[in-house]
Amino acid sequence: MKVSGFTVYDVLLRNALVHAERTALVYEGERLTYRGLLARVDALAAGLAALGIGKGERICVLAQNHAAYLELYGACAKLGLIAYPINWRLSPEEVGRVLERARPSMMVVDASSLPQIGDWPATRGEIPHWYQFGSEAAPGLKPCETLYRPGDTAAPAEVADDDPFCVISTAAVELIPRGAVLTHANVIASNVQTMALMGIGAQDVNIVALPLFHIAALGVTMAVLHAGGCNVVMTRYDPAEAVRLIDAHGGTHISDFPPVLLNLLNAADEAGSRLASLHIVSGLESPDTIARLHQATGARFWTGFGQSETTGFVTLQPFQERPGAAGRVTPLARIRLVDDAEREVPVGTPGEICVRGPLVFAGYYDQPEVNAVTFRGGWHHTGDVGRFDADGYLHYVKRKPEKELIKPGGENVYPAEVETVILELAGVTGVSVIGVPDPQWGEAILAVVEAPAGHGLSAQDVIDHVGSRIARFKRPRTVHFSEALPRTDTGEVDREAVKELWGKAE
Amino acid sequence: MKVSGFTVYDVLLRNALVHAERTALVYEGERLTYRGLLARVDALAAGLAALGIGKGERICVLAQNHAAYLELYGACAKLGLIAYPINWRLSPEEVGRVLERARPSMMVVDASSLPQIGDWPATRGEIPHWYQFGSEAAPGLKPCETLYRPGDTAAPAEVADDDPFCVISTAAVELIPRGAVLTHANVIASNVQTMALMGIGAQDVNIVALPLFHIAALGVTMAVLHAGGCNVVMTRYDPAEAVRLIDAHGGTHISDFPPVLLNLLNAADEAGSRLASLHIVSGLESPDTIARLHQATGARFWTGFGQSETTGFVTLQPFQERPGAAGRVTPLARIRLVDDAEREVPVGTPGEICVRGPLVFAGYYDQPEVNAVTFRGGWHHTGDVGRFDADGYLHYVKRKPEKELIKPGGENVYPAEVETVILELAGVTGVSVIGVPDPQWGEAILAVVEAPAGHGLSAQDVIDHVGSRIARFKRPRTVHFSEALPRTDTGEVDREAVKELWGKAE
Repeated sequence: MKVSGFTVYDVLLRNALVHAERTALVYEGERLTYRGLLARVDALAAGLAALGIGKGERICVLAQNHAAYLELYGACAKLGLIAYPINWRLSPEEVGRVLERARPSMMVVDASSLPQIGDWPATRGEIPHWYQFGSEAAPGLKPCETLYRPGDTAAPAEVADDDPFCVISTAAVELIPRGAVLTHANVIASNVQTMALMGIGAQDVNIVALPLFHIAALGVTMAVLHAGGCNVVMTRYDPAEAVRLIDAHGGTHISDFPPVLLNLLNAADEAGSRLASLHIVSGLESPDTIARLHQATGARFWTGFGQSETTGFVTLQPFQERPGAAGRVTPLARIRLVDDAEREVPVGTPGEICVRGPLVFAGYYDQPEVNAVTFRGGWHHTGDVGRFDADGYLHYVKRKPEKELIKPGGENVYPAEVETVILELAGVTGVSVIGVPDPQWGEAILAVVEAPAGHGLSAQDVIDHVGSRIARFKRPRTVHFSEALPRTDTGEVDREAVKELWGKAE
Repeated sequence: MKVSGFTVYDVLLRNALVHAERTALVYEGERLTYRGLLARVDALAAGLAALGIGKGERICVLAQNHAAYLELYGACAKLGLIAYPINWRLSPEEVGRVLERARPSMMVVDASSLPQIGDWPATRGEIPHWYQFGSEAAPGLKPCETLYRPGDTAAPAEVADDDPFCVISTAAVELIPRGAVLTHANVIASNVQTMALMGIGAQDVNIVALPLFHIAALGVTMAVLHAGGCNVVMTRYDPAEAVRLIDAHGGTHISDFPPVLLNLLNAADEAGSRLASLHIVSGLESPDTIARLHQATGARFWTGFGQSETTGFVTLQPFQERPGAAGRVTPLARIRLVDDAEREVPVGTPGEICVRGPLVFAGYYDQPEVNAVTFRGGWHHTGDVGRFDADGYLHYVKRKPEKELIKPGGENVYPAEVETVILELAGVTGVSVIGVPDPQWGEAILAVVEAPAGHGLSAQDVIDHVGSRIARFKRPRTVHFSEALPRTDTGEVDREAVKELWGKAE
């Protein structure tokens, strides 16, 4: 017999006792205490239970940030439902592919995502429940607020530590994005580790600027929630508003992907603010912007290595500890770097970053064959390559070639997906999509398209076609044409040679 | 498939990478780095594996503190062996009862515990291996140092998070002390929580003054070890030496049961030290001594509620946050207070403290029936009674009557055990053993013995008899005689009436 069951809902119960009157959430000027948050979560869970949605079923969320987003996470935790958020920047076709994988019992959207779902509430009968955040809803949808049954309480389901809490979409390797299953134990381990490493406590105020479907936003938000701190939820990132919220609420934390921080610093300059309360900015950023943060404010930048599959950071450091490095292995992670034969490589030699420990996800949703490969030998193979220095700092090297990934503004773009779409164009005989450094967005997308002389395609044609088929953030910023791409002996496009020829000229 | 396996040995591997050259242990003037500690643990594990001791087998340790004590914990973690430490203050008879429960494959002692084991290495054939810490050994024992095989490496066993790491002896309810099984996940959860709450990091230096068989010593020691800090191991607590070690090594932490802190402060006064580096003292203590600590030094006293069965504290606070309270529920615990019908009691009403979450032990070793009762309803029933105030602070009230416990100097003394022994005396017809407040030791033992007029027994007879049968710390300090103890309708001695009549006069 075990008495260890401890879920995200247990965290809410504990905090409703310990931090009852502290502010848990601020959203559009409204405050919710921890006691109030629990009441909202219980009321929502009662409504979901009344619909007959039960343990293990999925609820997809296609929406910008909202206080109800976090209430829904809490209600799912109570009932053992699996929260399956979707990137609101995906195209309708891509959203559809996520739904194919998730097979949700309920879809929750907001006003901004109505264009993406179109007539699905009427036509996709396999999803019985369609709801919209708030008190009003478009035709075919019901308002989420009608689900809340104040004072009513659904019995919590028997939820184990290792049961799924949420699924975070990652690589669209086979066009359908994979979903990283994070368990309650994953999230709780990450929370406590983040508290320990960053010193997060009930005094902290996190500005939730990044979207809540992303692990970077979810990770810090849950850690601050667990610690009894306050999360100030922004519907969508707006730099001037973020400066205002930091100064109004004493914001101590914000998560960052380029160009969030750069825009924040510009907006702070304009507003004449020194962001006096800001303490930690965490994420990935260019050294120039980090230097400006350190110079202009009292905040410090924390960076590391992590991914959705590891519930966030598994190496971490304040940037200034060793500029350029990704930090050292965190207390709840083991990392080994291996060569292609799975042998551990010596210090200084690059190898694939493999992770184990309580932060490692439970596998990709509904993809046992992929999981068997990813978890071979009892380690999660991240697809990223790094090397350790003699002091135990990890240095990020690159993605593994077969798992190439471009990160414009923190989004994950898989070249293979963009290439598949470009190959649909008449006259295109080959293509290579690569990432090139970009001072504002971190990375930008470059496509080199192979087509015979006189093909008649313009760069804009290629860009527009990609934008019409998949999310706009996946469009190449630059397109080059070539009559003959470099190829390997086996006839495949030689990506490394393409990088050599076109990647550096950018 | 799961890739979450993460054990105490993984912590050592991680720290040998991250904190390679930092000092892990100081013992008798010798320093061991984290890289050195891993090498020692690997060498010891190789020796244990060569003896054929394998996963799930127990190793008992009956010894005062030693660097090798922690190396042995590490080697056990690597091989999936279960460390089963024994209180060195127990009588030979009591040690024998622990061994009956533990059925170890190996017994490790030190010079100080040789009198307790007598001729057992020759006569207790059921325990095949007898070792003594250090390079020398008494006849019939082998020196532990001969087990170390430097450079040799045993393959780590497949050890799961939920596999036992150690067994900590607790209540001798049925005369044989129960053993609380703590898993790797228990210890690791406790470590990270302690880091988060107390802000423990690689800069910390813990003075290991309490014995390592006790959860209070083990808990902080493991947390500091996990954080990459330094543990300065004292063989046995000596106040003057503790002052010297704090000042010499910049000690930041020490764990306390009365009279450890009082004696430390007295010794600091004598030495003219203000214990300048000391930051946190944690444990249980009288308000007067805590006030003196706060006045005389910069350290702060942390206190809470916890037991071996909860891997340490499940409520915690700096004492001054709410003097008299036991703190608030920690981030990795749920607590509910229940009445005898298992109904949750309202705020302000005392109830039995029940705990769940990753800190709750895996059950008493080899006692499934007891576990079924202890874990009824999915909660660990602590046997302690507390109440919550309106701000979520727990206030300790008392032990449940049937789980009466006296704590002289942090030791656990069960009245039932002492009563059983006293009833062996000719002429004794009844007895009640209770705890009474004691300024130096926290609590002292009082026995009220029922015997007819002219019984001829002296108080010293009773004290001596107890000391001859069980550990000396279980001897009553005071003995009263009565011709007729108060009894209930059912004829049992009325413990509450005894407390009323004799407990307050002390």
